[in-house]
Amino acid sequence: MAGSPRRTAGRRLQLPLLCLLLQGATAILFAVFVRYNHETDAALWHWHNHSNADNEFYFRYPSFQDVHTMIFVGFGFLMVFLQRYGFSSVGFTFLSAAFALQWSTLVQGFFHSFHRGHIHVGVESMINADFCAGAVLISFGAILGKTGPAQLLLMALLEVVLFGLNEFVLLSLLRVKDAGGSMTIHAFGAYFGLVLSRVLYRPQLEKSKHRQGSVYHSDLFAMIGTIFLWIFWPSFNSAPTTLGDGQHRSALNTYYSLTASTLSTFALSALVGRDGRLDMVHIQNAALAGGVVVGTSAEMMLTPFGALVAGFLAGTVSTLGYKFFTPTLESKLKVQDTCGVHNLHGMPGVLGALLGVLVAGLATHEAYGDGLESVFPLLAKGQRSATSQAMHQLFGLFVTLIFASVGGSLGGLLLRLPFLDAPPDSQCYEDQVYWEVPREHEDLAQGPLRAEELETRA
Amino acid sequence: MAGSPRRTAGRRLQLPLLCLLLQGATAILFAVFVRYNHETDAALWHWHNHSNADNEFYFRYPSFQDVHTMIFVGFGFLMVFLQRYGFSSVGFTFLSAAFALQWSTLVQGFFHSFHRGHIHVGVESMINADFCAGAVLISFGAILGKTGPAQLLLMALLEVVLFGLNEFVLLSLLRVKDAGGSMTIHAFGAYFGLVLSRVLYRPQLEKSKHRQGSVYHSDLFAMIGTIFLWIFWPSFNSAPTTLGDGQHRSALNTYYSLTASTLSTFALSALVGRDGRLDMVHIQNAALAGGVVVGTSAEMMLTPFGALVAGFLAGTVSTLGYKFFTPTLESKLKVQDTCGVHNLHGMPGVLGALLGVLVAGLATHEAYGDGLESVFPLLAKGQRSATSQAMHQLFGLFVTLIFASVGGSLGGLLLRLPFLDAPPDSQCYEDQVYWEVPREHEDLAQGPLRAEELETRA
Amino acid sequence: MAGSPRRTAGRRLQLPLLCLLLQGATAILFAVFVRYNHETDAALWHWHNHSNADNEFYFRYPSFQDVHTMIFVGFGFLMVFLQRYGFSSVGFTFLSAAFALQWSTLVQGFFHSFHRGHIHVGVESMINADFCAGAVLISFGAILGKTGPAQLLLMALLEVVLFGLNEFVLLSLLRVKDAGGSMTIHAFGAYFGLVLSRVLYRPQLEKSKHRQGSVYHSDLFAMIGTIFLWIFWPSFNSAPTTLGDGQHRSALNTYYSLTASTLSTFALSALVGRDGRLDMVHIQNAALAGGVVVGTSAEMMLTPFGALVAGFLAGTVSTLGYKFFTPTLESKLKVQDTCGVHNLHGMPGVLGALLGVLVAGLATHEAYGDGLESVFPLLAKGQRSATSQAMHQLFGLFVTLIFASVGGSLGGLLLRLPFLDAPPDSQCYEDQVYWEVPREHEDLAQGPLRAEELETRA
Repeated sequence: MAGSPRRTAGRRLQLPLLCLLLQGATAILFAVFVRYNHETDAALWHWHNHSNADNEFYFRYPSFQDVHTMIFVGFGFLMVFLQRYGFSSVGFTFLSAAFALQWSTLVQGFFHSFHRGHIHVGVESMINADFCAGAVLISFGAILGKTGPAQLLLMALLEVVLFGLNEFVLLSLLRVKDAGGSMTIHAFGAYFGLVLSRVLYRPQLEKSKHRQGSVYHSDLFAMIGTIFLWIFWPSFNSAPTTLGDGQHRSALNTYYSLTASTLSTFALSALVGRDGRLDMVHIQNAALAGGVVVGTSAEMMLTPFGALVAGFLAGTVSTLGYKFFTPTLESKLKVQDTCGVHNLHGMPGVLGALLGVLVAGLATHEAYGDGLESVFPLLAKGQRSATSQAMHQLFGLFVTLIFASVGGSLGGLLLRLPFLDAPPDSQCYEDQVYWEVPREHEDLAQGPLRAEELETRA
Repeated sequence: MAGSPRRTAGRRLQLPLLCLLLQGATAILFAVFVRYNHETDAALWHWHNHSNADNEFYFRYPSFQDVHTMIFVGFGFLMVFLQRYGFSSVGFTFLSAAFALQWSTLVQGFFHSFHRGHIHVGVESMINADFCAGAVLISFGAILGKTGPAQLLLMALLEVVLFGLNEFVLLSLLRVKDAGGSMTIHAFGAYFGLVLSRVLYRPQLEKSKHRQGSVYHSDLFAMIGTIFLWIFWPSFNSAPTTLGDGQHRSALNTYYSLTASTLSTFALSALVGRDGRLDMVHIQNAALAGGVVVGTSAEMMLTPFGALVAGFLAGTVSTLGYKFFTPTLESKLKVQDTCGVHNLHGMPGVLGALLGVLVAGLATHEAYGDGLESVFPLLAKGQRSATSQAMHQLFGLFVTLIFASVGGSLGGLLLRLPFLDAPPDSQCYEDQVYWEVPREHEDLAQGPLRAEELETRA
Repeated sequence: MAGSPRRTAGRRLQLPLLCLLLQGATAILFAVFVRYNHETDAALWHWHNHSNADNEFYFRYPSFQDVHTMIFVGFGFLMVFLQRYGFSSVGFTFLSAAFALQWSTLVQGFFHSFHRGHIHVGVESMINADFCAGAVLISFGAILGKTGPAQLLLMALLEVVLFGLNEFVLLSLLRVKDAGGSMTIHAFGAYFGLVLSRVLYRPQLEKSKHRQGSVYHSDLFAMIGTIFLWIFWPSFNSAPTTLGDGQHRSALNTYYSLTASTLSTFALSALVGRDGRLDMVHIQNAALAGGVVVGTSAEMMLTPFGALVAGFLAGTVSTLGYKFFTPTLESKLKVQDTCGVHNLHGMPGVLGALLGVLVAGLATHEAYGDGLESVFPLLAKGQRSATSQAMHQLFGLFVTLIFASVGGSLGGLLLRLPFLDAPPDSQCYEDQVYWEVPREHEDLAQGPLRAEELETRA
């Protein structure tokens, strides 16, 4: 097979054995710990005299499904832009997210819904597990094309634990607000992945450069991902907020923010483009920054105007990041960021955290009325001032960056274990290393020239 | 760059400056006018003693998300059928719809939810803004491939205002029913676009003819658009109706109508096709006519049988339109209708309006019972007879056609401003004019022969 | 036209006439029998003093939309994997499912909601009709590429009737539980299709072998289908269950089961693959087996652990089936199963039925509490023991296999009528037989060598 040596039996068995081991382990832990919660258990639900209409399912499940679509369709297809890595992009997203859902049910369950020896699950745990899978996929974006599936599963194994721990510190200890996860999901996932990518730095990656771009139809596939992420982001940011006005407001703010990041992305992309041309990479990614940037503040009284401004800034920063910062990141800091997660999740995530500091700091009893209780319970009870809440928010960002950096370093060391299934430098961004690829693409591994010749051969 | 002259700095700056200007203007107007409504504002919602379950969010948001999917995924991908205009189809849909959402929030807000100096927003304004964006995208379909993004933004700027005005006249002054917008969205958008396309008539468009068709995979991408439009159309027609039976019935009627338009489209397409072959253009478009045709009457007591008949007729008319009318439209009336919006939105929209006249005219107290109040409040109060309501409906169609024609003319004159970014006749339907396109397609601008040669070169 | 003889006027008119005839017939039956139910009729809904929030629409419609997406996007695109049969895969799915929705509304209506001479329709009948369409599409998967659209419509005509009858026997006579249809949908659809494919056995199918595989981008299109099926399967299994905990639990169990089938599919696919490579066919299909296998038991107290084990087994069996059993099925049993529905729907469906036997047999008052009434009403009333319910479940599987086999045989005989539009052996899996195909693919019918040459010609 072109370029890649026949793999030894050991490497061949790596993925199957790891899948089976992880699945076996989570299954045993599920047997011991995981139970239906009050809303999903037949006996418990009917023991109380509820109306079925009160079941949390009806308030959260449509949002859950939108989030689920974002994770598997959105992230999966967004990464299909690489011309020869589509199977891996969508396939490894599928695999690592599926594992992350199970594992995160356990980890988040221990931190958030562990009562009398059991973890209790329902639609909220489903949403939270999907959120954690989102962070894993963000990290995946930084190392896309440079790691094998067994490496990704190990990364997920570690990252889910650190995600859960960081989330616990922020939400339960610091009592920070971060419904849509500007900090816990986006900044965490991005910096975890970037630091990890730094540790895995490949000075010879140039050898695979010809496969690093897109082709016309792979860019269209990627737009499927972009658009599904864009349309459902209001559901993402509102899925875990308090019911009623909280969920409604979060969706509305996110909707506005995204329209603004779209406009600023088109503006900036054309402005910095050759002859004023738009760049698909910007449109596919930076237009989404409006969703990231209001991840912390969307449930607050951000105002529609505030949402527009936030989205506008995020789209601008993100587009300029793709244009000017990503090249520097590689040449100066030796961070190879395949999908530019620093621009879509890193900087807008940090910006979103800071926006959260600002909006929390401006919270008043007048603006929130009796709704203060559900957005900022500690303020409503007088246990914290708005300024104190803002400081806690800021500290939450700091904690997140620490967790992400330390976690990414550990992850990088783990993934450098020599027996793992990393592709050689000349075989990065190449599906054939891990997949049976239909014949017409079989010899594509040799480079674009041979590939195009090939299409004319029998 | 192949064929297209290096653009001057002035044209290069056109799109960025227009985006920034429009975003700046809407942001200022948002700051001054737009406020959360009673359902999204923390203080206002908690001031009343609501149950969170009563929040409008839970009754409308799932429908909103389906509509949102239709606008961005449905319309976006439906237009990807052109072989070299996929980036523009999905990208300019994205840009112009994002702007239309903001702008329409303001325009529709002034007409419909302006109280004490402020526009109040929530899930209903989100749905309405998406509806308006739908009309803009229908018009876009008529001129697809022949206009630049700056032109499209200007078109949206004008069309959103006229859409809002027309909608106000129909819904608030004439008290016409048009939940799914057979008139306000489909007929308006289609005739606005067609008249505009007439004003922009290009006698030399032949020069780009080789790019006007599809390729195999671009047709499959377009089917993504078709299918998402088809499955979610029941949500589109039911999203803004009265709660309860109204929303339920609208969805049900639309569902049946679409199944019938699908069957008649396949029947007619094979009947008029060469050797009985089906034509993808028909399936992609005419099969959707069943959704358009019940846009006015779906919330009425149309009966499931009525829905089948309506859908069947719409699919038939639409398919025959593609086959026989579109060529005439260009040769005789000098209207170049890229996507055939006359067949999918124009004729079925008018048909839908007339069906609304009929079904409204047949409304009786017996058929609607106490539900008459929510479908035809003026009839329930005895302020109008069924015949009078029918006449108002008919007059509404007339008004719509006037607004669309005048608006389209104005729009055409606006878009003919010589400094705008229209592509030359030989560069229509070509992404490269506005986008960085991956290398393998780089020289495609020269015509299909060179393009195919190219694939064999290094 | 390459390879296929000009079709006679008779064959040319076959599809149009059949569409028109079937549509005419269902329309007449709709006029006579179909009426709005209490939730969709204006007069009936307002006659009772309901709160609009109680309308079934709000509890079922989001699930319905997910199911609708699965049927048209999921099944449609899953079958696009064939390199030259994409138009037919998505187009004939569209046509036959649209017809099945109408026809099934009538057939299921006669069996389940026929009161005082009328069939009453609403969101539940919409869900049930989509379920029936799912079974038709599963059967379609077995014969994909080997039948024409008129044949498919006739198959649907017959299959919908037998589906309705089988469902009636199971759910209404045997009082079997099968919310997500392991038996009624998956096993029925699969064995109906497999037996039918056996009757249509083509010994010379080898002639079309070069078109039976995928190409790189067709596999990516198929992944759109896979992922949408995967994410919405929890809605599929929960759509028709009892409200409250039942719906909630069904979704949760399915979600876990699918994560496990994904892990086991990746494990097994790599384990049996050449050099440890993954096979896209497995990922596209077997990863979904977790949804099928809990179709009967998801609403029961399966426990999250039980869901993981079930999903794991289903993914394993399904992957091994693709690898080892499908070839045997063709060589030994003369069953040509294009999509491998035996592996995705057949075996996992039977496994799911048996799991239902087990979980029903283990049902206790203690585990279900007062919820026993809604899951197993006969047990709650003391009219049946758990063991008896289990035996009834088992008998339901037996009945289903009988109905499917007899129905598939009849269907095969029907489809062998010589004047129908079956493609010749050398033209199977080829869109051009039924569709106008864009020029660049025009001569592809001759085989892959000529096809690739062609791309270099003008």
